[in-house]
Amino acid sequence: MIVITGASSGLGAALTQQYAAEDHTLLITGRSEQKLADVMASLTPLEQVKVQTHAADLCVAEEVSDLFSRLSTPPSSVIHCAGSGYFGPIEQQTPQAINQLINNNLTSSILVLRELVSRYRDHKVTVIVVMSTAAQAGKANESTYCAVKWAVKGLVESLRLELKDSPMKLIAVYPGGMATDFWQTSGKDINTSSFMTATEAAAMLKQALIATEHGYVSDITINRG
Amino acid sequence: MIVITGASSGLGAALTQQYAAEDHTLLITGRSEQKLADVMASLTPLEQVKVQTHAADLCVAEEVSDLFSRLSTPPSSVIHCAGSGYFGPIEQQTPQAINQLINNNLTSSILVLRELVSRYRDHKVTVIVVMSTAAQAGKANESTYCAVKWAVKGLVESLRLELKDSPMKLIAVYPGGMATDFWQTSGKDINTSSFMTATEAAAMLKQALIATEHGYVSDITINRG
Amino acid sequence: MIVITGASSGLGAALTQQYAAEDHTLLITGRSEQKLADVMASLTPLEQVKVQTHAADLCVAEEVSDLFSRLSTPPSSVIHCAGSGYFGPIEQQTPQAINQLINNNLTSSILVLRELVSRYRDHKVTVIVVMSTAAQAGKANESTYCAVKWAVKGLVESLRLELKDSPMKLIAVYPGGMATDFWQTSGKDINTSSFMTATEAAAMLKQALIATEHGYVSDITINRG
Amino acid sequence: MIVITGASSGLGAALTQQYAAEDHTLLITGRSEQKLADVMASLTPLEQVKVQTHAADLCVAEEVSDLFSRLSTPPSSVIHCAGSGYFGPIEQQTPQAINQLINNNLTSSILVLRELVSRYRDHKVTVIVVMSTAAQAGKANESTYCAVKWAVKGLVESLRLELKDSPMKLIAVYPGGMATDFWQTSGKDINTSSFMTATEAAAMLKQALIATEHGYVSDITINRG
Repeated sequence: MIVITGASSGLGAALTQQYAAEDHTLLITGRSEQKLADVMASLTPLEQVKVQTHAADLCVAEEVSDLFSRLSTPPSSVIHCAGSGYFGPIEQQTPQAINQLINNNLTSSILVLRELVSRYRDHKVTVIVVMSTAAQAGKANESTYCAVKWAVKGLVESLRLELKDSPMKLIAVYPGGMATDFWQTSGKDINTSSFMTATEAAAMLKQALIATEHGYVSDITINRG
Repeated sequence: MIVITGASSGLGAALTQQYAAEDHTLLITGRSEQKLADVMASLTPLEQVKVQTHAADLCVAEEVSDLFSRLSTPPSSVIHCAGSGYFGPIEQQTPQAINQLINNNLTSSILVLRELVSRYRDHKVTVIVVMSTAAQAGKANESTYCAVKWAVKGLVESLRLELKDSPMKLIAVYPGGMATDFWQTSGKDINTSSFMTATEAAAMLKQALIATEHGYVSDITINRG
Repeated sequence: MIVITGASSGLGAALTQQYAAEDHTLLITGRSEQKLADVMASLTPLEQVKVQTHAADLCVAEEVSDLFSRLSTPPSSVIHCAGSGYFGPIEQQTPQAINQLINNNLTSSILVLRELVSRYRDHKVTVIVVMSTAAQAGKANESTYCAVKWAVKGLVESLRLELKDSPMKLIAVYPGGMATDFWQTSGKDINTSSFMTATEAAAMLKQALIATEHGYVSDITINRG
Repeated sequence: MIVITGASSGLGAALTQQYAAEDHTLLITGRSEQKLADVMASLTPLEQVKVQTHAADLCVAEEVSDLFSRLSTPPSSVIHCAGSGYFGPIEQQTPQAINQLINNNLTSSILVLRELVSRYRDHKVTVIVVMSTAAQAGKANESTYCAVKWAVKGLVESLRLELKDSPMKLIAVYPGGMATDFWQTSGKDINTSSFMTATEAAAMLKQALIATEHGYVSDITINRG
């Protein structure tokens, strides 16, 4: 069983389609029932049988807990794609949108990882945390977005130390800009025609995640170009 | 005029005392009127004349704005010390305390820097952002604290790029653990007898902040030992 | 055509075997003719037909140039695996072995990348630079090894900026400790039975290197566990 | 006693003048007897009495050892300023100049730190390693210079771990571009009129280096602006 958050669009939706096509059993989540149903509708009937949906607001601890309570056994992997963007010079950003950005990216990541460590730290669960290249360097006009992404990176690096002797593994993924709906709601007007698609990024990511007996790819940056 | 946030205890209080002793004009802020009054009471009458207090919750944009509205001219420096700690294994942390940690460290820093850039980006204002060595590396049992401190670092690095052609300068300060009240409320039981005091850290920081015509110390890490 | 340096042992040899098995045309290099012949002997006759060997000391600019002069057209990829280890407390390291470490890891990487940029900067050549997790953090008793690996990372990050508008791409690979001959000559007595093998690391790396039309994996860390 | 390397010009010479003016006892070194004599000549007779010179090539282990053999007791501080620059697109750099760059910056730093750890690891000696902001980020047309500076940073970070329980402290200093002779021999044609002078950088550095009983400034970045 693979759990995918942020599955209703972008990279999460593309990963859902690609893992479903390979006959994996999936639990996918997103904030909107409707969008999850749309992703479901994009699958073949045979694929749909193996995919469950569960809408949840990951900024609410109880909803995060309810999500994983649906599983009777530990998942093999959890791919945490949920997140949102918000851009522009800092003096043009509104307090309300900043709070939403923090909730959608940082609070949700803390609550998801807290739940996973709490439930599965003694199990062989692979947790893939999808961030952004904005977690690796400062960028003008992306200051608050960088802030929340750097935060998730600091969280992951710290939890790796807490999980040192645990079979649970954390994999950090840093994709560069993709051509997804993400940009429409981000406040950034940008031509994404040369950007990689979520489908391309999902394909590369899926390929890179294949582990061997004694090793695994722990950190991956995916760039356009 | 120097503005100091988080001035009611720890490094902020120590800086207040040392700058006041050197006859600087100060505006100090903290959440608690009472604690600010206590800091005030620790000053000599002559020093008190040059120090104003203004209680504010820096997680509320309007209160941040009101604070700086008190100034009739741009301050020479703003030293942003406000922040709080919260530690322990992630599975033992509560959602409520996590939200408070995010508010006290990240939301407040974003709102303060947003206000400062908005008001003073065309003025020669030096903004000193006090973080922690937890902003520079992951640490076990400090995962959420590292997260919010990494966030502030990402914010500062991004804003430096936005302020590239501005006379406003951002200085990043990373102190290691100090012997302050900070630990009492942090959930970490720790012997701080060999730690540097806030007074020591303030003295070193004040000394390091002295700039010359063509240069300044932009990043400082202060460690115990 | 894929060029592989450091192909006479470890990861380079394993990559040679795996790419040869997939019917790629290869030019492999290493310092020792004999060792290259041994790797050649490990291939099937059908594979051998597509593999050329060329012994070279990559610390000598002329030999680096001669190596690439053998190619009549730009290679599709160059995988730079050459390198050596040297460990222990700094006060126990000898100046001679330190110089050798610098030559084998830093000088050779500079000369190889210099040659590649010089020849192919206007071609779609993918250059994979294999470093080590020692390039990402300081490690006790690996100080000089970390130094040379950090150096290569700084080189790669700088050259990415020089190649910003070039079709040439630099991919950075950071493998953790593998169970290879590397350790026998490194001065570190270590039980490698739980380490990943070079074959495992090569398999993961090869898989991760697959690119799509608009994107590629630019940075990969491979860890044991 | 304070030992200063690279004292014959730039930051090292400026530090020599400023520490001498404060009546410190100094041992200063550089490659050229003549240049050391020139620095000496810039001091007052009273200052000269307290300053010794000793020419040495720090890329040669024996010369590094001879330098510190002159001291009958451990120095209080060693300020390692020695280094040289070399810039330009990588394909225009010569193998010979690259080797010199590696020697002057990396080999010398390894040999100096190796000697200091070997002699003084049980003494309260403060070792200040002056690098450059080029050690902190990649820069186009500074690829090999960044490489050797990143190397020294990796060395320092590793040695800090080796010296964890030692009274010896390593302080990392990262100055941005200064208006010194450095640029004349670096191959970079640049207008340095707005750069800070070595005298300014020395003044800021000296001020920042003042420690307290339980703490010290461990990392300092000095920028122009």
